[in-house]
Order: sequence, then structure tokens, then C-alpha cells
Amino acid sequence: MQERTVFFISDGTGITAGSLGKLLEHFPNTHFKQVRMPFTDTLDKIQHAQEVILQATEQSGSRPVVVMTLGNIELRNALKESNAYFIDLFNTFIDPLSIELDQKPLRGAGIAHSVMGSSYNDRMEAINFTLNHDDGMTHAGLEQAEVILIGVSRCGKTPTSVYLAMQYGVKAANYPLIPEDFERGTLPSVLHKHLNKIFGLTIKAERLHSVRTERRADSFYASLENCRNEITTAERLMREAGIPWADSTSRSIEELSTIILEKIRHPA
Amino acid sequence: MQERTVFFISDGTGITAGSLGKLLEHFPNTHFKQVRMPFTDTLDKIQHAQEVILQATEQSGSRPVVVMTLGNIELRNALKESNAYFIDLFNTFIDPLSIELDQKPLRGAGIAHSVMGSSYNDRMEAINFTLNHDDGMTHAGLEQAEVILIGVSRCGKTPTSVYLAMQYGVKAANYPLIPEDFERGTLPSVLHKHLNKIFGLTIKAERLHSVRTERRADSFYASLENCRNEITTAERLMREAGIPWADSTSRSIEELSTIILEKIRHPA
Repeated sequence: MQERTVFFISDGTGITAGSLGKLLEHFPNTHFKQVRMPFTDTLDKIQHAQEVILQATEQSGSRPVVVMTLGNIELRNALKESNAYFIDLFNTFIDPLSIELDQKPLRGAGIAHSVMGSSYNDRMEAINFTLNHDDGMTHAGLEQAEVILIGVSRCGKTPTSVYLAMQYGVKAANYPLIPEDFERGTLPSVLHKHLNKIFGLTIKAERLHSVRTERRADSFYASLENCRNEITTAERLMREAGIPWADSTSRSIEELSTIILEKIRHPA
Repeated sequence: MQERTVFFISDGTGITAGSLGKLLEHFPNTHFKQVRMPFTDTLDKIQHAQEVILQATEQSGSRPVVVMTLGNIELRNALKESNAYFIDLFNTFIDPLSIELDQKPLRGAGIAHSVMGSSYNDRMEAINFTLNHDDGMTHAGLEQAEVILIGVSRCGKTPTSVYLAMQYGVKAANYPLIPEDFERGTLPSVLHKHLNKIFGLTIKAERLHSVRTERRADSFYASLENCRNEITTAERLMREAGIPWADSTSRSIEELSTIILEKIRHPA
């Protein structure tokens, strides 16, 4: 397999540059060694970066890919003296966008991920809300939730809720469906008045069995038969209540969150 | 203030395209209305997108910015018939990178954020670990943590830990410094054997006072004097133990996480 080093070099956190690293998944036949170099905001640090780029070239035999966001033009030009394949987000996006908007961009370091960013406080508030409303911990304040995820234990409610809060500032509560609900045959009564913001997660029985076995091997809770029964009943309850749901078995929390937001914010 | 609509149009989640939205913070004099259109993977959906682009143009009087990741060339060309300022991540990154790597890219939808992605399982495991080791909840398994964040109550440990886990797959425990520790004058004994992976957070007293007041107004806990004393003592304990720390008052969780990872993974 081909090897390439990819550097994400930024005068700030390098998170925006790094997020483009996801696009490397389009090239499964190359093994990418990803190296983030944040806070590269002086000529000394640029020189250090150049040395590391040279080392990587010598070790792997091919020039590295460098994804860069450097506001300072002098630093940017200095870095580009290295032999690498450069993806320069200022050149590619910010400068052309500046022409389109007829507006000079801010060039300071760390603009993109500062606490001054437009939605930062909303996101922090949502994370607190979500952690305080994990796993049906409290009924208080459910009316403030934008989304309430429901589903059987270990179907992926918690990481999906946390992602919704952290990434989108969505106050996402989650509420487990448990044996008492299945015996009674109805959704927990506390949920009845929130039906329009409930979204269900479900999962394949084999997958749930394996996830629960990691937690409590050889228990009734983890048995394939119990997993099957819980899932069948949970899906029936959701269907009867008209609640939309998605299967988490082969979907990432990013994909689930996108589906959930589309459904809750733009119901068909 | 100038208004612009920015569409993030993708055949997958649109999360990679959306992450470039952070670069818009470089243009503080424009108010951007950001609209994500995920799962745009048929000609019908492209036509719908074109209508929405046209409406946005008519409403705001200027053409929208469209950041797009569409693997299918037919869909891509169809969308580009609209009048908009296009930033096409396939054109700009993937196709040129394909030439550099001498390798055809995968063109399917949703490649970047699937559960097949290289680090997905590590991230899920880290989220579970972090939530189970929030706020000193348990000492069991601390040896598995890559980072242990410490600091006074409400200084930002929890959201920073969760970000480290979710974004980087880092198992990040966090452990509060509490009045008993300050009276005793030493770090909790359970931490002594983990000194090399402890990172401290601190915060300005005025800010802590305000955060705690939201939680418990008029309490001793929230009083400015108590906040000052706790912070002074916590910083002294960290200094004496040689623990690196950062001030969370004006730093985002993205910035803090970057600082922490640099320190823990590349100690000077």
C-alpha cells in the first residue's frame, strides 16, 4: 500500500484544515499518516515544519501533502518553499471568497475556533443540557429539548445525543425504553406530550447482542432472544405512536445526527 | 450588514463541506445564513436545490455561496447550472489529489463519515470511557486514560473531555479538585501515579463566579471570595506537582483540546 504523510499546518488549532482530512477516505488504497501542527505562527515554527516535511519525504520516498491555513502571507510563502503538495485554504477559499464578498478577511490566527465564534455559547449550553438529560436521568426540563432520542439500552442514543449537542448546539435528551415499558406496552407517559420531537433509534438484534455481551456476558439482558424481543416491541411502540426512527447498526453518529435533524427540523 | 446565504450541498452528510463554514468567521461583516442540504443524491433533489438557490438569490439580492461535495459528475454539473458562487470540494481537492496520488477516488455518497471510517470505533469507545469517567465518577480504569483533566468545579473539564473523545478518540477522564483537597493541601492520592498524563484547567475568578451563580445563586460555593480561594489553591497544587495547565476563560474547547494534545503527546 502507498504511504503518504499529510500535514495540517495552521496558525490556529488546525481543526478546519484537519476536517478536510475526512476527504482522504476517498483514497482507500493509500495509507495516510496524518500530522497536525497547530499554532504554527512564527518563522521559527515554520522552519521546524519545513524540517519535518523534509524528513517525511526522505522516509517515505514521496512528497507529503500539506493542508494549510496561515493568515500571515510571509509565513505562508516561507512554508511553500518546501517540496510538498500544498492545499492552501487561504488561496483556495478565503481569498477568492473575499473577492466575491468584496470584503477583506480577518487574517489573525485562530479566528475559526475562538470562543467568539457565532454559536459557541449555544453549543456549551447544549452539551450541559444533553449530559444532564442522558439516559432518562431527569424529566425536568424536557420541554427545552429540541430532540428526544428513544430506544432500547445500548442502541447508540448517548453518543448520538452528545454529537448533536457538540456539533450543532442541539439540546438532545435521550430516554431509554426498558422492560417495564415493554410489559405495559406503551411509551413512558412522560414522553406523551413530546411526541413531535421524539426520534427513535433501533439496531439489529445480532449487533445489540454483541454490544451487550461486551458489557454483561451471559446475562439475560444480553441474550440474543431478549435483544430480539426488546427490539421487536420497541419498534412496535414507535410505529404505533407514529415516531420516525433509524437503524444505527451500520450508520455513524454523524449520519444519524444528519437524518435526525432533517426529520425534526424539516418534517415532510 | 451584508447578507449571504451559504448552502452546503452533499450526497452524504455534508459535514466535511459544513466544516469549511468555520472559515466564514473570517468575514465578520457579512451575516451568513447557513443551510445544509445533506443526502442530495438524485436529480430530483438537485432540482429542488436549484429552486432553493434561486429563492435565496431573489430574497437577498445577491447570489448564494454553494459549498458542494457530490461524487456523481452528472449531479455536479446539473447543480452548477444555477447562478451561485461555487466551492466544489471534488474539483478543488479530490480530483487534483487524485492526480498527485495517481489513484482514482471513490465516488460513492457518504464516504467521509461512514462507520467504516478509519477511526470510528476508537472514537465510540473513547466517548463511552469519557462519560464513565466524568467528574471523578470512578477510579477504576484510570490507567487506560490518555489524559486526565483536573481543576475546580465548573472550569470546563467536562465539555473539553467530551470534545477530546468525540473528535480525536482520546480517552479523557476528568477529576474535580474539591474543598477536601484544598484543606488537605495535596492532589487527590488516586492521581499521584498518573502525573505524566494530568493536565490542569484554570479559569478567572470573576468568570467562575458568574458560571457558578447561574447554577447556585447566592451560595458560598458561587461567592467571588470562595472562587478566588479555590482557584489560587488549585493553581498552587498544580504548580507544586509540576502539572501543565491552561486558562479556559477565553479559550474554546477546540483550542483547549489542541493545547492539551500538544502537551500530552509532544511534551517539550
